[in-house]
Amino acid sequence: MKEIRIGMLGCGTVGTGAARILINGAELIQSRVGAKLTLKRVADIDTETDRGIRFEPGVFINDAWRVVDDPEIDIVLEMIGGKTLAKDLMMRAIENGKHVVTANKALLASHGNEILGAATGKGVEVAYEASVGGCMPIIKTIRESLVGNRISAMTGILNGTCNYILSRITDEGVEFETALAQAQAEGFAEADPSLDVDGFDAAHKLAILNALAYGMEINLDDITIEGISSITPMDIAFARRFGYKIKLLAISKHRGDSVEARVHPTMIPFSNPLSNVGANLNAVTVTGDAVDDIMLYGYGAGMLPTASAVVGDVADIARNLLSGAAGRIPLFSYQPDRIQKIPVMPMDEIAMTYYFRFAALDRPGVLSKIAGILGDHGISIKSVQQKGRQSEAAVPIVMMTHEAREADVKAALSRISSLDIVADRPVLIRIEDENGDEEM
Amino acid sequence: MKEIRIGMLGCGTVGTGAARILINGAELIQSRVGAKLTLKRVADIDTETDRGIRFEPGVFINDAWRVVDDPEIDIVLEMIGGKTLAKDLMMRAIENGKHVVTANKALLASHGNEILGAATGKGVEVAYEASVGGCMPIIKTIRESLVGNRISAMTGILNGTCNYILSRITDEGVEFETALAQAQAEGFAEADPSLDVDGFDAAHKLAILNALAYGMEINLDDITIEGISSITPMDIAFARRFGYKIKLLAISKHRGDSVEARVHPTMIPFSNPLSNVGANLNAVTVTGDAVDDIMLYGYGAGMLPTASAVVGDVADIARNLLSGAAGRIPLFSYQPDRIQKIPVMPMDEIAMTYYFRFAALDRPGVLSKIAGILGDHGISIKSVQQKGRQSEAAVPIVMMTHEAREADVKAALSRISSLDIVADRPVLIRIEDENGDEEM
Repeated sequence: MKEIRIGMLGCGTVGTGAARILINGAELIQSRVGAKLTLKRVADIDTETDRGIRFEPGVFINDAWRVVDDPEIDIVLEMIGGKTLAKDLMMRAIENGKHVVTANKALLASHGNEILGAATGKGVEVAYEASVGGCMPIIKTIRESLVGNRISAMTGILNGTCNYILSRITDEGVEFETALAQAQAEGFAEADPSLDVDGFDAAHKLAILNALAYGMEINLDDITIEGISSITPMDIAFARRFGYKIKLLAISKHRGDSVEARVHPTMIPFSNPLSNVGANLNAVTVTGDAVDDIMLYGYGAGMLPTASAVVGDVADIARNLLSGAAGRIPLFSYQPDRIQKIPVMPMDEIAMTYYFRFAALDRPGVLSKIAGILGDHGISIKSVQQKGRQSEAAVPIVMMTHEAREADVKAALSRISSLDIVADRPVLIRIEDENGDEEM
Repeated sequence: MKEIRIGMLGCGTVGTGAARILINGAELIQSRVGAKLTLKRVADIDTETDRGIRFEPGVFINDAWRVVDDPEIDIVLEMIGGKTLAKDLMMRAIENGKHVVTANKALLASHGNEILGAATGKGVEVAYEASVGGCMPIIKTIRESLVGNRISAMTGILNGTCNYILSRITDEGVEFETALAQAQAEGFAEADPSLDVDGFDAAHKLAILNALAYGMEINLDDITIEGISSITPMDIAFARRFGYKIKLLAISKHRGDSVEARVHPTMIPFSNPLSNVGANLNAVTVTGDAVDDIMLYGYGAGMLPTASAVVGDVADIARNLLSGAAGRIPLFSYQPDRIQKIPVMPMDEIAMTYYFRFAALDRPGVLSKIAGILGDHGISIKSVQQKGRQSEAAVPIVMMTHEAREADVKAALSRISSLDIVADRPVLIRIEDENGDEEM
């Protein structure tokens, strides 16, 4: 029986999960892969805390460099995260001819092109299924199953924390801060939740998927990113009345010479299967010319779901090693010489439909003033509703538009928000896959 | 640039789709796979009808044996279907050392063990992603992504025709025969729809998934199969009132030394994502100890979705050939020497909850008589409702049970149906994933 030796960097949540599966599932994995996968070294700065794993003596060490420099190790699992030490260790492992498995989307989204170059140069694999969508095999599906498809769009709920928070606001009518605190109490959100709730994590993942699907160089910087912290129970309630839910979506569309790529709170109709994805679950829909729409759905984070993807990658590499086929699939799906720089379309040029909410004083002529400004900018209103009557305080005026250009929308909202009769900043939520039937 | 030569047997719906993708998408596929995939020969008894494809001269021929015997062909696509000629041609192709791609679930479910043996003996691949779930990469997900998971259950909507028919009955209240005629008019159902509506097609697919997930020999004969032809709008309406939809589900559960394996109309609660799978779509949920539940969703049939899976398999094999790695993954996921005969649990021993509908005369004591018989057999009633009052005709009495054994249920229903006060045969629909809140 052949043996494949694995070294792991970092034994936090995902690392612990991967170690548990590799050790407790060793017999099962062996019966599928046909080789013994041995966890030879695990490095973490903390080797004291009990992980509930029985490591063999000498396996659990402090020095990560000993793992990447160990000549007996075939595959290195980078489970540290971040873009500094993790990157240095990963590059050294590649330099040493080791194959790498990682869940580090931030690193890949920021330095993916460089890592691709290094790995291709050394003929080693860098596998990263766990970096997008946790246990969902979205990377494998795009790289392998959809080879015959021209992929035209991807739409994903790619951040479980945001989805949990929006689900709480939707189901319980609580404010964002309350829902965030609940997410933190449940262990879904970090102490500093900004990477999640401000949309960066979802954008990292979208940058990776875009590269795979469209054959483009990784481009994180040009993705438009908007988080969920300004979403209120009031807007969610209005959305429901129009037949929509609000989700943080990562959206990309191939537009010939450029791609749309954006992460923002989005209204989607109840009929869209993504609208039913609750709790901290993830889902992603890929649109291809042969498959039409295909959707994957599952836990996008958490110890064992993420570790399941890590172990799937380990098995893939092990099977390649056993067949002498390392590098049988290009790192980013396309042959390296076929990867292009495809520009991301400026957000201002994108046209879609919108939901607006204005807090306006209840005076005659208010609606006509707002509608007039929208009209000046070529934005036509599909439906409008003014809620309640108040002689003193502002009342909400809610609108859905026909298709309009983002630049025009921004210009119009900027003028409207400077009106005396409008209190607060207008709320704008973009609509995707509109259901064509939004009359209230 | 290397070239991989493909021969195709049968140019019907799926074959035509595969040829279109391979020819029209040649450049795209090449940029991903790194080799030219050439469709060298296509055989069909009808080479006259226009498929909308521009074959090179000499490619489209009548003689299928010339394809499997052509020494230049690397991969054979078996797109004929059926278990006779398709099998002979496939076995000859394997014998000639060619790799095979097929969508033929009936053949695999009936002769998969034999095909596995032949392919393993010759060191060739037989790929069959398109045989289950059309474009959904369920085979790849189980064989590759879930390697670290002990899979405990699978639940799938695996027949698009049945799902279309049940969706029509649900949405429009039409009878089964009307919905079937609509499915046939839309091209979803064959002239002889029995393979679909009687549940056999879904059972073929389940037999394949069971082998992959549990490491068992293919076993079609012991799967309990019940079709949808007795489902009525009335039962669907009652189901809705209890919070359930009725779907034809393929269900399997690993029970240690045996597996449950059954295909039948099933009530699932609205909260189960499978309940939202409409039209002729397919979806399958896999439960594993690391991933919890993971779901794939997409078109399970149709020219291009199915062909997309075929081309994905072709790309997989091509990548193996380019790396000299043919056979890098065992045909049925487990190493051949680790595949076991795992018995299918007799249906009579399975316990679950049930929906019953009795057509009973509206006389005093009827309910007590029915309930008494159920009690005699150890079946306890969770809720009951009698609809309307009629002095002459029978009225429906509807019940949901607590967990009961199938053998007891059958015995009780047999006694109840022989009562004078009960007209018609009682209706029994099994419940899965009960929502615990079925009071009407």
